[in-house]
Amino acid sequence: IQKNDIDAFRKEFLEVHPYDQAKFFVSQEEDIRKQIYTYLSPAEMAELFHNLDSEDQEKILHEMAPSYVAEMLAQMYADDAVDVLNELEKDQVVSYLTIMDDEAAKEIKDLLHYEEKTAGSIMTTEFVAISANKTIREAMKILKSEAPDAETIYYIYVVDDEKRLVGVLSLRDLIIADDNKLVSEVMNDRVVYVSVSEDQENVARMMMDYDFVALPVLDYQRHLLGIITVDDIMDVIEEEASEDYSKLAGVPDGEGNGYSAFSAAKKRLPWLIILLLLGMFTASLIGRFEETLNKVSILAVFIPLIAGMAGNTGTQALAIAVRGIALGESDHNSKVQLLQKEIGTGLIIGFVCGILVMLIVDVWQHNFYLGLLVGTAIFCTLTVSTMTGALIPLVMHKFKIDPAVASGPFITTLNDIISILIYFGLATLLMNYLV
Amino acid sequence: IQKNDIDAFRKEFLEVHPYDQAKFFVSQEEDIRKQIYTYLSPAEMAELFHNLDSEDQEKILHEMAPSYVAEMLAQMYADDAVDVLNELEKDQVVSYLTIMDDEAAKEIKDLLHYEEKTAGSIMTTEFVAISANKTIREAMKILKSEAPDAETIYYIYVVDDEKRLVGVLSLRDLIIADDNKLVSEVMNDRVVYVSVSEDQENVARMMMDYDFVALPVLDYQRHLLGIITVDDIMDVIEEEASEDYSKLAGVPDGEGNGYSAFSAAKKRLPWLIILLLLGMFTASLIGRFEETLNKVSILAVFIPLIAGMAGNTGTQALAIAVRGIALGESDHNSKVQLLQKEIGTGLIIGFVCGILVMLIVDVWQHNFYLGLLVGTAIFCTLTVSTMTGALIPLVMHKFKIDPAVASGPFITTLNDIISILIYFGLATLLMNYLV
Repeated sequence: IQKNDIDAFRKEFLEVHPYDQAKFFVSQEEDIRKQIYTYLSPAEMAELFHNLDSEDQEKILHEMAPSYVAEMLAQMYADDAVDVLNELEKDQVVSYLTIMDDEAAKEIKDLLHYEEKTAGSIMTTEFVAISANKTIREAMKILKSEAPDAETIYYIYVVDDEKRLVGVLSLRDLIIADDNKLVSEVMNDRVVYVSVSEDQENVARMMMDYDFVALPVLDYQRHLLGIITVDDIMDVIEEEASEDYSKLAGVPDGEGNGYSAFSAAKKRLPWLIILLLLGMFTASLIGRFEETLNKVSILAVFIPLIAGMAGNTGTQALAIAVRGIALGESDHNSKVQLLQKEIGTGLIIGFVCGILVMLIVDVWQHNFYLGLLVGTAIFCTLTVSTMTGALIPLVMHKFKIDPAVASGPFITTLNDIISILIYFGLATLLMNYLV
Repeated sequence: IQKNDIDAFRKEFLEVHPYDQAKFFVSQEEDIRKQIYTYLSPAEMAELFHNLDSEDQEKILHEMAPSYVAEMLAQMYADDAVDVLNELEKDQVVSYLTIMDDEAAKEIKDLLHYEEKTAGSIMTTEFVAISANKTIREAMKILKSEAPDAETIYYIYVVDDEKRLVGVLSLRDLIIADDNKLVSEVMNDRVVYVSVSEDQENVARMMMDYDFVALPVLDYQRHLLGIITVDDIMDVIEEEASEDYSKLAGVPDGEGNGYSAFSAAKKRLPWLIILLLLGMFTASLIGRFEETLNKVSILAVFIPLIAGMAGNTGTQALAIAVRGIALGESDHNSKVQLLQKEIGTGLIIGFVCGILVMLIVDVWQHNFYLGLLVGTAIFCTLTVSTMTGALIPLVMHKFKIDPAVASGPFITTLNDIISILIYFGLATLLMNYLV
């Protein structure tokens, strides 16, 4: 295809979906990519570019002429252009914005102001807004003229003279409605909207609850600032889920697969070193019981079992609590309920596992008191660690800390410490029966 | 509002979004809910009902007359009705389907056949399809008449005489296009579609990559069977993410917050008992080294540190690998790359943590050889456990097992065993220097 035949290439290439264009594009060598820049207009490149992942985007920006980049960014939907710019250095952003034409630059600058992860930062300003006193026929005409530029035309927002949102009209309503009716007669005036400073996670939740494909974003005077479309929300849902997942595993934010072993290690190490120091603290705790261990060295055998089981039950309770909070069950009542339930669950689990361990140890070691000790320790640690696992994220949420920060390894290490204290505490109590 | 004034209630109630109707509805007492059934038609109830969560749906089905339920299910989008029926007992499903009118029953029966979690099971059959030789004007007319019933009207699917999909037309294209053109001239004939047996996770990935709000579902002869809309896909993304999250924490599938402590314990216990038995195995391994422990009881002090760190690094590597696979990096090359990277990461992490531990133990215990032992053990276990954490999900994926099944607690317990063997193996080697 690449035999310098521009027309044939353009005809073939522009027919496929931009996502496939992007996949083909990144698989090419640099000189072929450079040829493609000359074949495609910045507007055509914009569609392809939007479908690259952010690492590739950065790499490819450096291959293009700055004026080509500026023109391409101006042609993208403003919210997507902002996503690209957010990944770049400040002075680079400024240099692109200066070459860009004023109108596009202003739109992008406005969006760059919003704090990350708020509704404002993911919204786009390319929506269709009309006034309420138009007829359906006029509305349809406006829609036809604005359709090529708007990010979604499935909702038409109705605003008053001061650009305050007064209603919404779905394209479906518009198509079904009588041409001569007024927009104000057909529109729905109970609009579901989000505020510009709303957290993106809450926006995603609303979009899922209400099954909309777009939501309007308002400021505090109900002025329509922009809209959030479902494709951006799908990315948010995945991003937030992957964040929670990483935190549960104690993997630092933003470690993609593109990174080298060295940078991956650099990202994971600080967290591991904290855990290591906590582990040293656990070790020093056990060190205090060295005398006990000297007398009854069999005690050491069950340390990993008890610490491990405490970690497992704690992580389970943590995951249930974090998920419960994410699903919006965060009022005081459901928190108390969740905690009560987890205490109950911990007691049952502790009881069953405790009895089981007691029997196994008794049969294996022919030592009733050792069985009693390990069984009781399992009962106590599982109950306590289930409670800790649930309590900590709930308390963090209360103090407005993201509960997912209480990652699995942290809870596990904390429960290690608790379980060691319980185990050796009980062992010291039962000492006379054990020796 | 509930002063028996049907008209006033209906006027108020039907104006709000069905999601809000549903929230209001479940918050009421049973007798008020019974009154609402008499106020609303099954079609109106259907919209509200779709917005309830599945536990509430089941409860409320039992309050309604079977004929009312059947009529309501018939009025729902077929895919939503199937979701409801999938939660019920088989004989209940049959009884509702027999009262239902034939056409609706047939549609639902067809969808009930598809295997869970495939494209077929989440698709709906209420789409708009037209033939290619119609004009745009005719297409618009057909759309207007079908709009009230179709789940989405944003894409119009173009089919030939045998109902094979030949093209797609977005509503945006339709609105912009000249009225007298033929559909075949305007439509896009490179349709992105999914096969009916495709896994829902892949469908979600495609929808996110291509930014569509609906995807057509075809059988193997390219017949158009149904469409999947973005609102269902958002649920899939959340469901799959929450599944991976739960598995990482070792929480069994489907434990919601609505369950009692007893049923939660019943669900978590089988898994915990398996881990408990594995823990017993670990204990018996340590038991074999009792003699070593008797001689150097200080060794016991570092067991939780070493096992815990192995668990932490293993879980991190596991999470990175599972996420890498979920993001579609599952060809042979990127797997090898991922594994190489993790081995490198493991070596670096192991080296840094090993040196650190050696220094701390040396200073704390004034025992160079003990420091050397614990440090070397940390180096070996962290390297091995990082590798295991990454290798196991990759191997599972190769054998077509969902890698997320290799949950955190499982990897942690496995790494406990490996780390104990390494630690005591090294301790036995260095025995002469330790005593």
